[in-house]
Amino acid sequence: MSDTKYDVLAIGNAIVDIIAKCDDVFLAEQDIAKGGMTLIDMARAEQLYSDMGPAVETSGGSAGNTAAGIASFGGKVAYIGKVADDHLGKVFTHDIKAIGVDYNTPPLDHGEMTARSMILVTPDGERSMNTYLGACGKLSAKDIDPEMVTQSKITYFEGYLWDPAEAKDAIREAARIAHENDRLVAMTLSDAFCVDRYRDEFLELMRSGTVDICFANDGELKSLYQTSDINSAIDAVREDCNLTVVTMGADGSMIVTREKTGTVDAQPIDELVDTTGAGDLYAAGFLFGLTDGRELGECAVLGSIAASEVIQHIGPRPQVSLKELAEQLGL
Amino acid sequence: MSDTKYDVLAIGNAIVDIIAKCDDVFLAEQDIAKGGMTLIDMARAEQLYSDMGPAVETSGGSAGNTAAGIASFGGKVAYIGKVADDHLGKVFTHDIKAIGVDYNTPPLDHGEMTARSMILVTPDGERSMNTYLGACGKLSAKDIDPEMVTQSKITYFEGYLWDPAEAKDAIREAARIAHENDRLVAMTLSDAFCVDRYRDEFLELMRSGTVDICFANDGELKSLYQTSDINSAIDAVREDCNLTVVTMGADGSMIVTREKTGTVDAQPIDELVDTTGAGDLYAAGFLFGLTDGRELGECAVLGSIAASEVIQHIGPRPQVSLKELAEQLGL
Repeated sequence: MSDTKYDVLAIGNAIVDIIAKCDDVFLAEQDIAKGGMTLIDMARAEQLYSDMGPAVETSGGSAGNTAAGIASFGGKVAYIGKVADDHLGKVFTHDIKAIGVDYNTPPLDHGEMTARSMILVTPDGERSMNTYLGACGKLSAKDIDPEMVTQSKITYFEGYLWDPAEAKDAIREAARIAHENDRLVAMTLSDAFCVDRYRDEFLELMRSGTVDICFANDGELKSLYQTSDINSAIDAVREDCNLTVVTMGADGSMIVTREKTGTVDAQPIDELVDTTGAGDLYAAGFLFGLTDGRELGECAVLGSIAASEVIQHIGPRPQVSLKELAEQLGL
Repeated sequence: MSDTKYDVLAIGNAIVDIIAKCDDVFLAEQDIAKGGMTLIDMARAEQLYSDMGPAVETSGGSAGNTAAGIASFGGKVAYIGKVADDHLGKVFTHDIKAIGVDYNTPPLDHGEMTARSMILVTPDGERSMNTYLGACGKLSAKDIDPEMVTQSKITYFEGYLWDPAEAKDAIREAARIAHENDRLVAMTLSDAFCVDRYRDEFLELMRSGTVDICFANDGELKSLYQTSDINSAIDAVREDCNLTVVTMGADGSMIVTREKTGTVDAQPIDELVDTTGAGDLYAAGFLFGLTDGRELGECAVLGSIAASEVIQHIGPRPQVSLKELAEQLGL
């Protein structure tokens, strides 16, 4: 690849997380799908906020978390995502710029509010997300800066972008520009329910070569191929995508290429507090490693290190320098 | 005491905390007094927010944190404090009600915004607070519900309330009502610089019997009596106040009555992350114990347990049930 300004351009739903602890009874009472992401409207958002416990607000959004993670590793990152010109939009903008990510998508100046996800964390550390998309619904191809795409080794986007109306056109446009300039395109499948909503389109993205690298957890991959057998899903994705990285929580991760499958252990942790951002930060470590010229196995270890940091505290973004953490661990 | 609806009524500056990590160089560059609370205007708040790192927003305010802590122990608490009718005001209101505190101070409907404190946490866990008081400046005697005071075993307030213009009148009125009804009045000295601003008034509150119970850390107590010798300060406060509780960080706490001084060890912790809320939560445990009829030594242990929980994560309010935590520890 020729010299670029950015290692990664991340594109996603720009969301502020409102995180509260709850028990499983609350999830059942509120009819919330545990471990997943459910789209909600403003009325439901207000009702849920009113019923849930004390909360912490912190910038989130899957690709935003990944961008923040790459920046924390010392990588050069840009981000595209739509907020509104309101308090939460200012919070999102501050946080992503403050960690060193280039971000200048114009905020929406009227209409919808900045997206928020009410994230409920159960005592087992699992998070269940309830997302009001708001301004994210207005992300369109106009928001894609072609120069940013051209200047990025990898353009990375989240499968969640298939939920808002026009974002998928923005992504197809970005992918076209990337490949025209010999750059790579990566995506995350985001969520098993999201995969269920857009299975055919996601498979088409991979089979058509629109996507070069795919991140998924085991549940998402099984959902993609509608199988309960992870090995069949692995065999299938090997045919469909050049490089697939599969995270499996405490069971580590797998690197699936056309030729073979490699396995990497999860980083040991002291206490699982909140899984929010685990997959996003894994992708951050992996993508940082890849654009830094590391071997695939080392990329996976960097992903595991980043994920291990973020699941030991509340909130989806790193609270320490991942660069320093990786150095302490000899990487 | 006759039967009451509340164990404690807490009155304070209703503030949302905006918490970021930083290093000591940043504090020096920004000319921030480490470990203290500095009052700032909106222009400085915006400049500091722009310069500081990624942040987390969470409800705070000294007495608000104490109220939340008492509720987490299972105590019955009410809170009085002024927010504006804006996003942060809704956040503050949600969080304090969601943890089980009765709160119905009418929000300010125009003029100032809800107070926010930009809290910078250095690697040693120390926090340095930069507070824009906003709507708190409008708390007045009109906001004191006499029935709430009458119905509370203890009315507790923060020394920080001497900063906004009219709040001190509100407090004197609340104390008068409390004592008329044979209730107790407690205060925290809040901050060594705050003590320096209002030393004579704080001493008068104690010497006149307006305050029955005083919470202070060692620095605040030394500031009160302008001495570098904690023992002289202890001797002095014993003359001035019926019951003083002095926190000393990792060195534990002291209970100073007219007759004697008792000492209690700090609760052991794994890792000091963020001292924000340590004193507030100590007061919560102590006041819960006191209104629950426990011995003074046990009150201090409950205070230490609550403080130990809050300093092991970012944010000034408990993230676990303090009632369950105390029960696990045999209390």
